[in-house]
Amino acid sequence: MNQVLDYAKRLMAAPSVTPATGAVFDELEAMLSPLGFEVVRFVAGEEPDGPVENLFAIRNGPEGSRHFAFAGHLDVVPPGGGWTSEAFVPEIRPSPGGDLLYGRGAVDMKGAIACMVDAVANVPVEAGTVSFIITGDEEGPAIHGTRALIDWMHEQGHAPDLCLVGEPTSVNRLGDMMKIGRRGSVNIWLEVEGVQGHVAYPHLADNPIPKLVAMLAEMDALVLDEGTDWFQASNLEITEIEVGNAAHNVIPATAKARLSIRFNDLHSGASLSEKVAAIASKHGGTTLPIVSGEPFLTPPGAFSQTIAAAVKAETGIDPEPSTTGGTSDARFLRSVCPVIEFGLVNATMHKRDEAVAIADLDALSRIYAAIARAALTG
Amino acid sequence: MNQVLDYAKRLMAAPSVTPATGAVFDELEAMLSPLGFEVVRFVAGEEPDGPVENLFAIRNGPEGSRHFAFAGHLDVVPPGGGWTSEAFVPEIRPSPGGDLLYGRGAVDMKGAIACMVDAVANVPVEAGTVSFIITGDEEGPAIHGTRALIDWMHEQGHAPDLCLVGEPTSVNRLGDMMKIGRRGSVNIWLEVEGVQGHVAYPHLADNPIPKLVAMLAEMDALVLDEGTDWFQASNLEITEIEVGNAAHNVIPATAKARLSIRFNDLHSGASLSEKVAAIASKHGGTTLPIVSGEPFLTPPGAFSQTIAAAVKAETGIDPEPSTTGGTSDARFLRSVCPVIEFGLVNATMHKRDEAVAIADLDALSRIYAAIARAALTG
Ligand SMILES: [Zn+2]
Ligand SMILES: [Zn+2]
Repeated sequence: MNQVLDYAKRLMAAPSVTPATGAVFDELEAMLSPLGFEVVRFVAGEEPDGPVENLFAIRNGPEGSRHFAFAGHLDVVPPGGGWTSEAFVPEIRPSPGGDLLYGRGAVDMKGAIACMVDAVANVPVEAGTVSFIITGDEEGPAIHGTRALIDWMHEQGHAPDLCLVGEPTSVNRLGDMMKIGRRGSVNIWLEVEGVQGHVAYPHLADNPIPKLVAMLAEMDALVLDEGTDWFQASNLEITEIEVGNAAHNVIPATAKARLSIRFNDLHSGASLSEKVAAIASKHGGTTLPIVSGEPFLTPPGAFSQTIAAAVKAETGIDPEPSTTGGTSDARFLRSVCPVIEFGLVNATMHKRDEAVAIADLDALSRIYAAIARAALTG
Repeated sequence: MNQVLDYAKRLMAAPSVTPATGAVFDELEAMLSPLGFEVVRFVAGEEPDGPVENLFAIRNGPEGSRHFAFAGHLDVVPPGGGWTSEAFVPEIRPSPGGDLLYGRGAVDMKGAIACMVDAVANVPVEAGTVSFIITGDEEGPAIHGTRALIDWMHEQGHAPDLCLVGEPTSVNRLGDMMKIGRRGSVNIWLEVEGVQGHVAYPHLADNPIPKLVAMLAEMDALVLDEGTDWFQASNLEITEIEVGNAAHNVIPATAKARLSIRFNDLHSGASLSEKVAAIASKHGGTTLPIVSGEPFLTPPGAFSQTIAAAVKAETGIDPEPSTTGGTSDARFLRSVCPVIEFGLVNATMHKRDEAVAIADLDALSRIYAAIARAALTG
């Protein structure tokens, strides 16, 4: 039996559209317990952002040994329509490049969690402490997921030295990219209040739209930075403008807009919120910022070299250390220890007919084992 | 019996929320026929802009005599809530300034039509031809109202020399203002198409919002003119922006906006539409203009002097010749002959407890008769 394939199929056969609870965690617990892991599961949060199930598992090494953590999520995005086979009935189909395993979560990221579990069987207990930080809500609001796990670990005194997040970071071939950082993200709502009136009598009204337009033009012209050694330039996008005035002859009372800023480690959510608020204020507007993630960076060094060496030994490829793309739970784990993301090929993630090459599962299992062994050696 | 008051009450007692048909026209026909008028009624248009009832009535003077037309509308805006008495049950109540007649249409403009009817009883047939151009749709889309009447008159060879529209033009006291013109009005829809994408990958998307913002800023900064002897400066208002993007992380595919321009006779709907389209095009946008009225101006002269003299003789006031405010059916009648608007005090028009001073009905009847007699004399 191909053990990692069996693990992947079992996890994928348990439907777990975000937020995940129950069966998919039962499966993971049933895999980890025989491998010597102490498993703790807890449910956090309430409607509408919960309840969310989380799992922490630990296999302690010798007293004073290093602690290496695998992190990831068992929830998946909804399958949507148009699948060739059932999204939650894993199916192997041949392809010119080798057999593929189809099903929601194949690469994002039940497949990677299967590899982590399979990998630890090949990491001796004597090598050190290994843990799993697994949430049921990474694809959703992520309020009660990894954040709650980190709080719980802190209370319990679990402090990993290094953490590997198994998000699908590979682009064209397994091993071609790892994420050593991610940009931060903040959404800012803008509002300008005016005085409603009739277009025939503009002197009796105060149209908020020209003020909104002027502030948006100024915000759109901002050059936040030119990028850094490891990050592309921060970017501001105006994603919405809403006035909601159906009456052709009416000057509206309010005008609203929304920005989304993806930013590098030259900024923080707060510094950008202040900058935008100052421009808004100059034009008579107000702001409501919601920071969904601060940037993180684990600068190239020992940890990234450990990962690169393991990847190269298995695949012959030098993984590119990247900070591109959206946010992940690494934004939270960065507060615990250095964190890097490395995982399967992301070509089919969040799409119909999500699939992973079975050969990639085998290879990633070996890579994860090599990383864990090397990381525990220090 | 106070004849003009009786006429007003009969017209106001017939509910006629726009578009008006039936009973209210029966009443008017029953008033005009005994006065020697030939009355033609016809229904024009279909859902959703119709059906609309229209009435043309004419009392021919001697061969070759001049032709003076009264114009107006029998439809009213919906009463809305909060009335002290029933909106369509005319009620006289005392006030410190004299008795008031309450009911929807009191000033806009069944009261004025009552005055026109009462006035013609005091205009000898020998003075010349008098006609009534009365629509049931001025407050609504106005597609099948006065426009249809003008078409019909043209076919039938009815060509007034002068036309008085009885809209409520007085502001504080009966007689303080007449409208010798109105600004034109055009609404222009703007649209910019972009390419949808994820805010984390802006290079794969094309955000239409900055283009829309830039074009709106340029349009808002336009100085269309400085006004003329008779018109205030043309004015552009941005009345709506709509993106409709609920997803915080998505760069939207399209962005739309709407302008409303009120303009004087230095422009036409077409010239402004072209000017705005050129700016939109420069920023990658498209436009859809809808001209709801061209400006009209009947420059001060014999007709306005006739009206002013009649007003002054009755009230002692010199009416201000104005071009302010919204549009009226004068925008259509301007194509037929010189047209001026003069009528009751507009303080309560379109509001709850719409009311007219009974003394104003008496005075306006005399003013209208004096205007008609003088206008027919030429
Ligand atoms: Zn994921
Ligand atoms: Zn009116």
